[in-house]
Amino acid sequence: MSESLVTLTPLGGLGEIGMNCMALETETSMILVDCGLMFPDVILYGVDVVIPRMDFIIERKHKLKGIVLTHGHEDHIGALAWLVPALDNVPLYGSEFTLRLALKRLQERALESRVTVHPVQGRERVQLGDFGITFIPVCHSIIEGFGLGIETPAGRMVHTGDFKIDRHPLDGHATDLEAFGEFSGPGAMLLMSDSTNVEREGYSLTEREIMATLDEVFTAAQGRILVTLFATHIQRIQEIFDLAAKHGRKVAFTGRSLITNIEVAKDLGHLHFNQANSCDMEELAYLDDRRTVILLTGSQGEPLSALSRVARGEHRQITIHAGDTVIMSSRFIPGNTRAITKVINDLYRHGATVLYERVQAIHASGHAHQEELKIMLDTVRPKFFIPVHGEYRHLFKHVELAIAQGIAPERALILENGQPISFTATGIRLEEAVYAESILVDGKGVGDVGQSVLKERQILGGEGLVIVLLVQDEYGTIVFGPTIESKGFIFEQHFAHVLEDAKCIILDIIEGNPHGPAYKLEERIRSSLRRFFRKVLDRDPIVIPLVVQI
Amino acid sequence: MSESLVTLTPLGGLGEIGMNCMALETETSMILVDCGLMFPDVILYGVDVVIPRMDFIIERKHKLKGIVLTHGHEDHIGALAWLVPALDNVPLYGSEFTLRLALKRLQERALESRVTVHPVQGRERVQLGDFGITFIPVCHSIIEGFGLGIETPAGRMVHTGDFKIDRHPLDGHATDLEAFGEFSGPGAMLLMSDSTNVEREGYSLTEREIMATLDEVFTAAQGRILVTLFATHIQRIQEIFDLAAKHGRKVAFTGRSLITNIEVAKDLGHLHFNQANSCDMEELAYLDDRRTVILLTGSQGEPLSALSRVARGEHRQITIHAGDTVIMSSRFIPGNTRAITKVINDLYRHGATVLYERVQAIHASGHAHQEELKIMLDTVRPKFFIPVHGEYRHLFKHVELAIAQGIAPERALILENGQPISFTATGIRLEEAVYAESILVDGKGVGDVGQSVLKERQILGGEGLVIVLLVQDEYGTIVFGPTIESKGFIFEQHFAHVLEDAKCIILDIIEGNPHGPAYKLEERIRSSLRRFFRKVLDRDPIVIPLVVQI
Repeated sequence: MSESLVTLTPLGGLGEIGMNCMALETETSMILVDCGLMFPDVILYGVDVVIPRMDFIIERKHKLKGIVLTHGHEDHIGALAWLVPALDNVPLYGSEFTLRLALKRLQERALESRVTVHPVQGRERVQLGDFGITFIPVCHSIIEGFGLGIETPAGRMVHTGDFKIDRHPLDGHATDLEAFGEFSGPGAMLLMSDSTNVEREGYSLTEREIMATLDEVFTAAQGRILVTLFATHIQRIQEIFDLAAKHGRKVAFTGRSLITNIEVAKDLGHLHFNQANSCDMEELAYLDDRRTVILLTGSQGEPLSALSRVARGEHRQITIHAGDTVIMSSRFIPGNTRAITKVINDLYRHGATVLYERVQAIHASGHAHQEELKIMLDTVRPKFFIPVHGEYRHLFKHVELAIAQGIAPERALILENGQPISFTATGIRLEEAVYAESILVDGKGVGDVGQSVLKERQILGGEGLVIVLLVQDEYGTIVFGPTIESKGFIFEQHFAHVLEDAKCIILDIIEGNPHGPAYKLEERIRSSLRRFFRKVLDRDPIVIPLVVQI
Repeated sequence: MSESLVTLTPLGGLGEIGMNCMALETETSMILVDCGLMFPDVILYGVDVVIPRMDFIIERKHKLKGIVLTHGHEDHIGALAWLVPALDNVPLYGSEFTLRLALKRLQERALESRVTVHPVQGRERVQLGDFGITFIPVCHSIIEGFGLGIETPAGRMVHTGDFKIDRHPLDGHATDLEAFGEFSGPGAMLLMSDSTNVEREGYSLTEREIMATLDEVFTAAQGRILVTLFATHIQRIQEIFDLAAKHGRKVAFTGRSLITNIEVAKDLGHLHFNQANSCDMEELAYLDDRRTVILLTGSQGEPLSALSRVARGEHRQITIHAGDTVIMSSRFIPGNTRAITKVINDLYRHGATVLYERVQAIHASGHAHQEELKIMLDTVRPKFFIPVHGEYRHLFKHVELAIAQGIAPERALILENGQPISFTATGIRLEEAVYAESILVDGKGVGDVGQSVLKERQILGGEGLVIVLLVQDEYGTIVFGPTIESKGFIFEQHFAHVLEDAKCIILDIIEGNPHGPAYKLEERIRSSLRRFFRKVLDRDPIVIPLVVQI
């Protein structure tokens, strides 16, 4: 068996859109590309975030030369806070803006001293052990994103990061295809490419097209303009400032994440606006509606966000005026649809007109469509192809696309999380799978909310519970109870008779066997009451009998 | 104040897509148009369905002349089971197929003897008290749907039901625009029209276009074809049988609702296929893959459906063969996206190719797009316009569309549930609002799961609960406990130390005040433990302290 020169181990992101994390190692060096989280499916009760299992990395931390961050979205940097405490002052590499966002997250948990940050410029090259990394600028829905050209002992490998190809980008936010081509010029062993939008034909909308549509909206607007968007989408924020200036409107902004990100971006020279063209929230009241723009958080209908409070009529400083135009310049994340449409309906009730992606082209995806994916394949012309950043069907379709584009079928591979692949002097080899899983984080608990706890939460959340308490003395006589207390079960005032009937069932059980051991009485109470509730209410709550014998 | 000739009271469906229900009354007569349910938002823990509040109808049951059902979808017939028991043998009017579906639902609850069904034909007219109803055939995603021409003492009113206009329909499933025109010829006072797709430009896809795409898929398919769709979509089922016959494939079908509906539709002469072109599931194994089609349930990723079991590899009779094509010929209902995409990913893992609306035009909405809505407005040319069947923003936009189409702005009205409108000899009048609300149904409980129970379920489902039990004797000495039992909280084996610390907190409280009244001790235990759990775990479960003093 030929010796492995480089082994790649995907730990997250190959099988889901989220928690991107991949390890690349030689015998003596390892680097990590991204360390992201995923927001949970709604069915994961009470879970805050989901992160990749970190054991694989921690076991090899002695050879970890650095963590390379492609860009600052949570699904690429958000799990650092759970990895960093287990490492010894790990160096982080990425753009200035990416590292600022990563540091902010670490600061929130007082972990910033556990890392060293190394900001890099586009086309800069750093050597991390056996790996030489060239950071290649890409266009994405956040500024300062990078793809990676990675020189390894097994040859040159390209990781696109999240990208799209905007061929006429605003203000230089372009994907540096030339650099991808130059890096791959001597021959690329492998391309790993973003699969998110492989199901979408043609090209993604460009920011220039978005801005043209927004310009029309600004021209038509008769009242105030309220804009909500992802707070990290600095390009789009710049567009709003530019359009406001053009149309003689002042911009006010509110919402914690927007304020922070605007400050950081301005500080780094990524956001330019004349102070005279902005105003604070208090000033709004003194300005003509047609002279104002309000940037605010809440693009996903988050209940506590500025826009949701405005929609409910509960915002301290902003009430909707008839004739206001609200622009939701962002994607609706599927699980949030209900919350978002509630906000839209409420805004209409107050007299606003609401524009969103479905009704107007006011948002562009940050991920390459099919034609752009082909351009990347044609630019890199790799020997091997591994799709990343996608659910299984995306990876599958990206492999189909790559084969159609000329990659040899046996060299286009679907890997899933935990499946390492080695590059040897003679070819490739799939290694034995490692244990990769999604770890659920709930509050300060990491991984303790497992399947059994989730199952209980699911029943509690859907059916509620009933607690039965009684105390027997040494003769088996009931000296306290039975009492029944329920939570999330029924509105007790309306169903007092059901609970009274349940008490009779309990008394019958005790009477029939007053000296039975507590655990047996409890078991009989549990099964009898479950049967009873199923019959009379068609429900199956968790029943907790507490029989105390003193 | 001029006397009301007719009053319309929307009880559901004007403010949501679902639970359609509207009352029309004169002094002595009332009819109900539809009585539908809504499936709950995922955040409504454990709620099975949502129905309109029925009090308004029940209070007026003495003058209820009949319930008119436009078509057989659940959001139009599904709430009958909760209304019928409160009425005295109410007559139901609708098409044969609609009434069969309605009766099936009532039979499931042994309520079929509480109604009398009166099947009507297209263009048939029935007199119900002061109302003359003409049933006008419409094209929708279910067969035998009707719009209504309603002659009232205040003039002619048109209710479109759910409709689209398929101008070259397959096999006569057309919207009878001629009949709408004829009914409105003498002048229509009011049009109530379906607002579902008012945000969509142009025309909806036609079944002919869908069938052409499906034909291409059948031509290209190299293995078996599996098709999932809504079980009531008989037209689409007919198309599958026709395409199968054309391509020399036999059709097998599985899933309870599909089997029932295919039987009913066949029985009523709405579904035609040669028995030689169908086969049973057992026969499949003996047929060439390229000679079979399998119709099965599971278009929404329902975990127990046939397709989900196939995707998980748990179906008794069907395993995916490499090269199979799975066609999901239906809309993804937003709340189901995660479940559906899981099924798709699993099918790909087993080697199938999956086609769905997003990647191929294999489903058409049953609701009119903008251009079709304009045709309806132009056909009926009503004096007043009230949009129905939509969330607030849909109603708002439909009013805008109607005004652009020539309806006088003061006569295009947005009504919401519970807002009655009267038509008098001289005009209209908005009456005082009635109490309309969404009633949550959980098992056999109707309306007992209110906001307080939901709130408890939300906390239980997200945080779990902790029960503390201790028994004190008459001297305040603890004779049992404290014990701590938790559900859905933490994995107790990993967090034994946390629960031990909690016990110490409880003992301190009792020691500090051994003779305190139970309710005070309980309150202190609750607040201390909540504070403790928030601090050490960042979680806030429901804490139930049970202090028994004997």
